[in-house]
Amino acid sequence: MTSQDGTPRADEGLDAGRRILGLIGELYPICRSITGDGFRETLRALQKLVPIQVHEVPSGTRVLDWTVPREWNIRDAYVKNSRGERVIDFRRSNLHVLNYSVPVRTVLSRAELDTHLFSLPEHPDWIPYRTSYYRETWGFCLSQRDRMALAEDDYEVVIDSTLAPGSLTYGELLLKGERDDEILISAHACHPSLANDNLSGVALAATLAQALGAAARRYSYRFLFIPGTIGAITWLSRNETQVGRIKAGLVLTGLGDRGDLTYKKSRRGNTAVDRAAALVLRAAGRPYRLMDFSPYGYDERQYCSPGFNLPIGRISRTPHGEYPEYHTSADNLDFVHAEDLADSFAKIRAILDVLEADRTYVNQSPKGEPQLGKRGLYSAPGPQEMALLWVLNLSDGCHGLIEIAERSGISFPAVREAAETLRAAGLLVETTAIERKGDCS
Amino acid sequence: MTSQDGTPRADEGLDAGRRILGLIGELYPICRSITGDGFRETLRALQKLVPIQVHEVPSGTRVLDWTVPREWNIRDAYVKNSRGERVIDFRRSNLHVLNYSVPVRTVLSRAELDTHLFSLPEHPDWIPYRTSYYRETWGFCLSQRDRMALAEDDYEVVIDSTLAPGSLTYGELLLKGERDDEILISAHACHPSLANDNLSGVALAATLAQALGAAARRYSYRFLFIPGTIGAITWLSRNETQVGRIKAGLVLTGLGDRGDLTYKKSRRGNTAVDRAAALVLRAAGRPYRLMDFSPYGYDERQYCSPGFNLPIGRISRTPHGEYPEYHTSADNLDFVHAEDLADSFAKIRAILDVLEADRTYVNQSPKGEPQLGKRGLYSAPGPQEMALLWVLNLSDGCHGLIEIAERSGISFPAVREAAETLRAAGLLVETTAIERKGDCS
Amino acid sequence: MTSQDGTPRADEGLDAGRRILGLIGELYPICRSITGDGFRETLRALQKLVPIQVHEVPSGTRVLDWTVPREWNIRDAYVKNSRGERVIDFRRSNLHVLNYSVPVRTVLSRAELDTHLFSLPEHPDWIPYRTSYYRETWGFCLSQRDRMALAEDDYEVVIDSTLAPGSLTYGELLLKGERDDEILISAHACHPSLANDNLSGVALAATLAQALGAAARRYSYRFLFIPGTIGAITWLSRNETQVGRIKAGLVLTGLGDRGDLTYKKSRRGNTAVDRAAALVLRAAGRPYRLMDFSPYGYDERQYCSPGFNLPIGRISRTPHGEYPEYHTSADNLDFVHAEDLADSFAKIRAILDVLEADRTYVNQSPKGEPQLGKRGLYSAPGPQEMALLWVLNLSDGCHGLIEIAERSGISFPAVREAAETLRAAGLLVETTAIERKGDCS
Repeated sequence: MTSQDGTPRADEGLDAGRRILGLIGELYPICRSITGDGFRETLRALQKLVPIQVHEVPSGTRVLDWTVPREWNIRDAYVKNSRGERVIDFRRSNLHVLNYSVPVRTVLSRAELDTHLFSLPEHPDWIPYRTSYYRETWGFCLSQRDRMALAEDDYEVVIDSTLAPGSLTYGELLLKGERDDEILISAHACHPSLANDNLSGVALAATLAQALGAAARRYSYRFLFIPGTIGAITWLSRNETQVGRIKAGLVLTGLGDRGDLTYKKSRRGNTAVDRAAALVLRAAGRPYRLMDFSPYGYDERQYCSPGFNLPIGRISRTPHGEYPEYHTSADNLDFVHAEDLADSFAKIRAILDVLEADRTYVNQSPKGEPQLGKRGLYSAPGPQEMALLWVLNLSDGCHGLIEIAERSGISFPAVREAAETLRAAGLLVETTAIERKGDCS
Repeated sequence: MTSQDGTPRADEGLDAGRRILGLIGELYPICRSITGDGFRETLRALQKLVPIQVHEVPSGTRVLDWTVPREWNIRDAYVKNSRGERVIDFRRSNLHVLNYSVPVRTVLSRAELDTHLFSLPEHPDWIPYRTSYYRETWGFCLSQRDRMALAEDDYEVVIDSTLAPGSLTYGELLLKGERDDEILISAHACHPSLANDNLSGVALAATLAQALGAAARRYSYRFLFIPGTIGAITWLSRNETQVGRIKAGLVLTGLGDRGDLTYKKSRRGNTAVDRAAALVLRAAGRPYRLMDFSPYGYDERQYCSPGFNLPIGRISRTPHGEYPEYHTSADNLDFVHAEDLADSFAKIRAILDVLEADRTYVNQSPKGEPQLGKRGLYSAPGPQEMALLWVLNLSDGCHGLIEIAERSGISFPAVREAAETLRAAGLLVETTAIERKGDCS
Repeated sequence: MTSQDGTPRADEGLDAGRRILGLIGELYPICRSITGDGFRETLRALQKLVPIQVHEVPSGTRVLDWTVPREWNIRDAYVKNSRGERVIDFRRSNLHVLNYSVPVRTVLSRAELDTHLFSLPEHPDWIPYRTSYYRETWGFCLSQRDRMALAEDDYEVVIDSTLAPGSLTYGELLLKGERDDEILISAHACHPSLANDNLSGVALAATLAQALGAAARRYSYRFLFIPGTIGAITWLSRNETQVGRIKAGLVLTGLGDRGDLTYKKSRRGNTAVDRAAALVLRAAGRPYRLMDFSPYGYDERQYCSPGFNLPIGRISRTPHGEYPEYHTSADNLDFVHAEDLADSFAKIRAILDVLEADRTYVNQSPKGEPQLGKRGLYSAPGPQEMALLWVLNLSDGCHGLIEIAERSGISFPAVREAAETLRAAGLLVETTAIERKGDCS
């Protein structure tokens, strides 16, 4: 992958993957939830890279059809046997606590305790990740093996948590570009020690913001680091009148596993980001998947709800639910790799490059082919000449560069380069949808 | 198959098939034609089940481009050899007479007789079914084996028929529903002793009318028991100004054989009944065929003529002409089966259920997902939740439940149930095409 | 293939192929270029068949974005070794000279000479065909074998050519039809001794003009015999305001080789000629190819430039560049065959027949089927009846005969014959797009 001017980017390649992986490692130990200090600590760590603005929305605030919940914080949690040994210990893994557990301090028999335990019989060594955001309860998650080892005993059960009025926290970063039109990059950051879902998305987004911050931008870029569902709903609620600026967007999730890249289309299915993603994945010559929109998954559910219907797709590697490590302790630092993170990063940048570079031109010499030779543009028959001819032929004010790449089968970078050559030679003038004069019907 | 409220229907299952088969057996011996007493006797038999209205249209009446022919009746017909033996005998099978044969009473040589005989060399034991409605002639149909056995002799030939001014008879039944909008169910009832084509359609239609008569109906249902071609033309001619009420329809034919169900689309190809039929056949998980419209076949030819272009498809099992028993004595009571008739009946009812239940809703909480939990609608991830999410996401006033089932791949009953759940929770309000406010382009 | 009235045409079959092949043989020895006397001599030879009008456009004339170049003529050219032997001799093959070579008269060493030589290592016995129209240089083309045989020596190099103000020549023939609407047939005639590319196109076009000149024509036909690229640009420049008359067109090239027929669609992709070509090739029951438009190839590049966007496709057998003999001395008289030329000729006539015969009708008895029997049109079920029914059913003023053939799968001639039968019976009346009353949306 190269930058728009054809030179390798400083941030590209395996180095970017390594930096993303390092950031994942830094964030991994923090116990996050959809509210609370773990989320704040995560944003503070990201602020070392990029100037994320932190928003606090008070508990009880009405956000669309929802209400911001009370804030959850946890200091410690354990189950001790009668010998005083911590047989389940939050300090060993924050997954051990059912996320959003209300405080508890009691002694229970083995059988009583068992009704509050969650494990995975089919993966006896993994701790499942479970939450109970909107139903007040408590529980412990543990491996099936550890659960089986719990003998008859009196168990001291302690969850030292608080669920109290506070606020929901989210991070936002706007990189102003030449235009007010925005591209939204959204990552949910509410999961505790899970590496792929979604520290990979969080860390990639921050690294991407850093890179884009240093580059020229036609579009403005808005980055959201939000708790899943309630965060997207909160942000949409507070920005309801301004979402019209969003011309494209990507929900980032699960970008570090070994699987092939997967792009899930927006509800509209044929917006610029959908087409750009398809072009980039097609051109890469590696296996990939394009999925139609469905109203299940991550925050694309909210962005693509019918009242917003934003042009936002989702990019991941293996989709959630299709790998057994999903939402378990096996989604750990060994499950994500610098190579895969680097590949995800490069492809996402390439998609943004396509969006940045897409233009619609009008051929200034539309009757017959212009004589390329007298302009020094004549070359031997080959890919370069084909790109010039395609751009000239379809630049009638109705076809943008994305469509030219789609129809010609030529890579977008080659189409873009041909367009730039022709523009520099005075053969193309950019137009906008509003100026279009041709009959594009 | 279950009814709209999810409980098994009393009329469903093999029992319905057995009742249809019984009715076929009752109608089978009658000698029908496009006019005459056999048609009237058939309608009288059906009136024992449902209050069919009988119409008589005088011979000579102009109907669209056609004229109602003279009425044909037959009492007896035979060919006797010189020993006085009936070697061809109408009393053994009414197929033996070329349908609409003019009266004849003569003595012919073997060679002279042969010019009036029809048989099937490729199926030497079967009697073909032949007609001559619009060309005055007479003839006998017989098995190739019997024909070969006719020695040189003087044969007494008698057809005791009349072809005289009278009327064309057809049956009509209107089941009024909540709306004046109609669904038309049409079966040709002019064939003599042929079980699949089309006593299966006739008997299934009558049984269906009986069942629908006992049910709540949004649509009105109009059943036609008519002679093929001239009956459809006569009915269309007499109801020319009212066909706009017909919102969907099915021509029923050949519904009792062992073949897979086959739905032939209306001329428009994408009307509600076309889509409902495709959904039902797809969901059944058994082999089936969807055929594009062609202007050949049964009375869909008339309903889908360009001047009417009605949204009427055709449903059958093996299409006519694709099974050798078609229009021969082998299309007898052994050729149709209760199981297949029951399956046809169930699928047709399911198609009508889809039409009855199709609605277009507007999500009343379209911005972000509504919080299902606080309405008691939250369930574990699974098919039920998916149906809720799809219905919410696509209920923007532009997509009906049929389209939601098509796009989601979820069965129509599950989509319908989700919509009802959401409607009951106040999250959906029905809209109509006229009220649509969204941009559905 | 038969004519519109179903009788074999006098000009069809192998005979047409033989006459085209004879004409190719006559034209083959002439040394043509994009300007000059060889082009004029070619037109004079064609004028023996058809009254082609010859146009001369002075060098220096501005034509669209281009300028008519100086005229090139050549009398002799050779390379002599020190023994005075012509080791490369224009008199043996006019391909030996780089087309448009400037005059030269010099003595060179073997090494110096070599920088002006062109050969094909992969085909050591073939002479390549090379040109240098817009860059002043000179050169010789020869077989790799001959090049290898050139020893160290002093070589006398002579090209007795002129490149001087003169004119560009092209031929044009208009066959007036009932209408001013035109069908354009274009062949580039600028290549020297190359049989398939494009003497096959030139000779077929002339033979076609002769045949069409003798036939009744609804459309007017305009034939162009032009130098490639600059000729099309010149003609378009001089006829810019009149191209709106062109309702269809074909660029003819490479029609005599053994390959399958290949039709390349116009830029619009779905015009009448595109659909007619697809119907004809489909109906022939032999392998063929349909190619989407691309802005590379022959003069369709100019006709389909965005400022003209004419409904013109290209027909050939094996496309240029897909056979190794292309643009070499192996594209000689042995490479083209009467059988293939005859097949190309027949298919092109059939495409024009479809265009000539395409009509849109309105069924005058659109409600129900008209009674065919009383009009003597009733036949046994079969292809003829199907064609009648399809034409009646789709003749609602919205579907032309081409579309009826496409949708029914019935051959265009059968559809046309059915339409003529129905028109003669008063059941169809022709309509035009302007008169259309039905709702064709």
